[in-house]
Amino acid sequence: MKKNRVRDKIGRVLFEDDTRMGRLFNIILLITILLSVFAVMLNSVYSLSIKYGDIFLYVEWIITILFSIEYFLRIYSAKKTVKYIFSFYGIIDLLTILPTYISLLIAGTNVLAVIRMLRLMRIFRVFKLVKYTKASNVLLISLRNSKTKIVVFLEVVLIIVVIIGSMMYFIEGPENGFISIPKSIYWAIVTITTVGYGDISPQTVSGQTLASILMIVGFAIIAVPTSIVGSELYALKHNSTVCKICKHNSHDIDAKYCKKCGSLL
Amino acid sequence: MKKNRVRDKIGRVLFEDDTRMGRLFNIILLITILLSVFAVMLNSVYSLSIKYGDIFLYVEWIITILFSIEYFLRIYSAKKTVKYIFSFYGIIDLLTILPTYISLLIAGTNVLAVIRMLRLMRIFRVFKLVKYTKASNVLLISLRNSKTKIVVFLEVVLIIVVIIGSMMYFIEGPENGFISIPKSIYWAIVTITTVGYGDISPQTVSGQTLASILMIVGFAIIAVPTSIVGSELYALKHNSTVCKICKHNSHDIDAKYCKKCGSLL
Amino acid sequence: MKKNRVRDKIGRVLFEDDTRMGRLFNIILLITILLSVFAVMLNSVYSLSIKYGDIFLYVEWIITILFSIEYFLRIYSAKKTVKYIFSFYGIIDLLTILPTYISLLIAGTNVLAVIRMLRLMRIFRVFKLVKYTKASNVLLISLRNSKTKIVVFLEVVLIIVVIIGSMMYFIEGPENGFISIPKSIYWAIVTITTVGYGDISPQTVSGQTLASILMIVGFAIIAVPTSIVGSELYALKHNSTVCKICKHNSHDIDAKYCKKCGSLL
Amino acid sequence: MKKNRVRDKIGRVLFEDDTRMGRLFNIILLITILLSVFAVMLNSVYSLSIKYGDIFLYVEWIITILFSIEYFLRIYSAKKTVKYIFSFYGIIDLLTILPTYISLLIAGTNVLAVIRMLRLMRIFRVFKLVKYTKASNVLLISLRNSKTKIVVFLEVVLIIVVIIGSMMYFIEGPENGFISIPKSIYWAIVTITTVGYGDISPQTVSGQTLASILMIVGFAIIAVPTSIVGSELYALKHNSTVCKICKHNSHDIDAKYCKKCGSLL
Repeated sequence: MKKNRVRDKIGRVLFEDDTRMGRLFNIILLITILLSVFAVMLNSVYSLSIKYGDIFLYVEWIITILFSIEYFLRIYSAKKTVKYIFSFYGIIDLLTILPTYISLLIAGTNVLAVIRMLRLMRIFRVFKLVKYTKASNVLLISLRNSKTKIVVFLEVVLIIVVIIGSMMYFIEGPENGFISIPKSIYWAIVTITTVGYGDISPQTVSGQTLASILMIVGFAIIAVPTSIVGSELYALKHNSTVCKICKHNSHDIDAKYCKKCGSLL
Repeated sequence: MKKNRVRDKIGRVLFEDDTRMGRLFNIILLITILLSVFAVMLNSVYSLSIKYGDIFLYVEWIITILFSIEYFLRIYSAKKTVKYIFSFYGIIDLLTILPTYISLLIAGTNVLAVIRMLRLMRIFRVFKLVKYTKASNVLLISLRNSKTKIVVFLEVVLIIVVIIGSMMYFIEGPENGFISIPKSIYWAIVTITTVGYGDISPQTVSGQTLASILMIVGFAIIAVPTSIVGSELYALKHNSTVCKICKHNSHDIDAKYCKKCGSLL
Repeated sequence: MKKNRVRDKIGRVLFEDDTRMGRLFNIILLITILLSVFAVMLNSVYSLSIKYGDIFLYVEWIITILFSIEYFLRIYSAKKTVKYIFSFYGIIDLLTILPTYISLLIAGTNVLAVIRMLRLMRIFRVFKLVKYTKASNVLLISLRNSKTKIVVFLEVVLIIVVIIGSMMYFIEGPENGFISIPKSIYWAIVTITTVGYGDISPQTVSGQTLASILMIVGFAIIAVPTSIVGSELYALKHNSTVCKICKHNSHDIDAKYCKKCGSLL
Repeated sequence: MKKNRVRDKIGRVLFEDDTRMGRLFNIILLITILLSVFAVMLNSVYSLSIKYGDIFLYVEWIITILFSIEYFLRIYSAKKTVKYIFSFYGIIDLLTILPTYISLLIAGTNVLAVIRMLRLMRIFRVFKLVKYTKASNVLLISLRNSKTKIVVFLEVVLIIVVIIGSMMYFIEGPENGFISIPKSIYWAIVTITTVGYGDISPQTVSGQTLASILMIVGFAIIAVPTSIVGSELYALKHNSTVCKICKHNSHDIDAKYCKKCGSLL
């Protein structure tokens, strides 16, 4: 009985940010995450590492141990333990502590602990910034609505970069830096996304011609994801009302009747 | 009579993915394509080619022979032979097997066999992913609707890059890497598309000024294709069916009932 | 009297592409332009120039002389001579012949003759490609409607690149390639437009931090011109005429009848 | 009494551009700003600095002293002195004169005086270019409306570049130019914004794979800010009021009367 009450109390602090304690806990958590990320980042700078390396190491281990305790408390106090462990945040919480422990076996893995940055995504919810939480949701929904179109788009991009990459490998060859098809595909991605490092670039006339075509294609293709997300976002801005009968929620702002079941909105 | 029945049966397996056999055949086909593309890609990596070159070669030839048999069976079983041969997929099917045979005469052409990747575009249809097939169609239609505008846009881009490229050749000259007008046009394309390899870049003050103008133009011009495709895509999302009762015509493509009067569309 | 008739006839051939002769003349003109541009381009390639330089020179001079005759005939036959000389195409026609003559005094200016490419912009009108002429007009109108917004936008970009460029000159200094403020502004333009040649790039920590801010700003700012042109283009697609009978106002620009009530617009 | 009248008069000239004197003053001010910015810019060019350095210095000091007098006159004549000092333009006015004085202590800070460029943002208002002032407002409002979404977007970008940057530091390491996590984050920003200087670029296969993912993500992510601002801008263009008399519904946000029937909105 008593044990259960303790467990409930811990659960409320850890999982609910509505309570005063829960909120306080979350704010401390966010600060700790930022602190630990900064420690990892600064420790990677050679000049700082030499001077303050020990301090960074202490900070890192103390925070990791605190996060480990938190993780086990979450498992202990979660209403549905298994569900928590395999949830998005459950996996993040685990990935957050693993790298530091693994760094005892394989040097350097501790830098991967910055993945705990992902926990910062809850910052708007914790600080009750309703406007920002809403904006996040709108962006998330419009990205989710765009999913199928973006998958189709990525498939087309993939096919283009594989084919053009292989053609460039054939045209330019290893002597001009296109040492293999995978590397040529890497070059094609660098080009079609308009990043253009210039570490590899075509040297022959036919190579430069093909590259020009790829760039123009890339230029035109930038249009597609923008258009997809844009049209979803704009549609979302204007759908609003939910039908009371069939719960369909994607009506235009000027709609009077539900477009799914025909009942008055 | 019997021959015809065999031919029909082959035709159904090869051309129709509605039947069980046809679907199975198509799935095997897609896997084979992926396998052969990977074989070509990995064979181009020097370290892997030395070790496993023979295996890759066997895989390539076996798959090419299988594809050749498939191609001739398609010609044999197609209802309209000539139409198939000159159809989009008919040409792809041929281009898919040719490079490997040509590589007996001209070394290296076999890498061009990756063009068989284009056959992967049917993946959504084969796996009955209706949502993705629909999304492909929407994207295709909005691109087709944008065609005339994009041609006009590309004409303007072409004129700009030729003129600015020639001016840069005049200003910078061969001593700064702008060795000819075609190469300077290549530079102009690299710049206007914002790829910016940096293999050639202006060295003189007037060259850098002209380059700056070209970049700002390129920056503003990115707007145009995005806007074209975007407005088509959004229009597509919202034009669609007209209500027979109230004549309202701005329903979503997935609408079943008129949003103004509630009657069935 | 007779002189006038000859003049009128010449005028009709040169200025009107509705007549059979006028159209034929225009088609020959377009081909000649393409030919001369190719001659100039290929002549700039060293290996081709050595072999065929004389031929290119002949082609160039013959075409320039023909264009000169055409220019003087246009002046002679234009209804409003002064208006033609200072019109857009009048100036282009002059710029089209000048570089070759100036090349007698200053070597190399003849490459600037490619400015005659601008005359290709009439290609759709000459070939009566109505769809493309329409598309050009739509693009032109939406760009013109966006003019004030784009000027404001460019002013903001100009202020940003001057300020950030000067700050980088202060932070990085000549020893890191930022040899002067104009050069640093050039770098800022290369960065904010996401071209990124890499010929100059920040070396200090504070320089890289400021550059990161500029890049994120540039990234966000790409949004603005796209959005401006896009919203104009979409508005153009959908505003247009209002039906006098049913007051419906969402007709396409090419609509002749109201799509709601069928009355003439 | 008399003192007050002088103060009022000065205030009217300095703060109000409606009066003839105020307008004249503002025009002279804008020219002076441009002059001083050019002086600072040209003085940074080594060859010009040697020749005309003294002239530039005189111009700079004379203008700075004039601006200082203007600043103190503004403080003296402002109706609400404290409010002016801490207003946007008040701070700009101070920042505009400080760098030149600080340059007496720390050499080189005078280049930061170009921050006075920010005062040019009032150019449209001074020259009564109503259309441009309006366009500025529309852009400003749509950016302000997009604020929350853009903050959310920047947070996601920040999390991505920190995590991917750290992973690249782990994969590539100092030997390939990724000398620390902050530098790797700088690389990630250069890549996700598609700038791509190429001063640092991945050398290992796994690094190039991760970079490819980041580029594709960056490519898709360009969509988001464009879509946000675009949908705000379009909504702004089209929300507005519906006329009660003629039911026309596409008035600009600043419209007072129906543009169709002239009745009050």
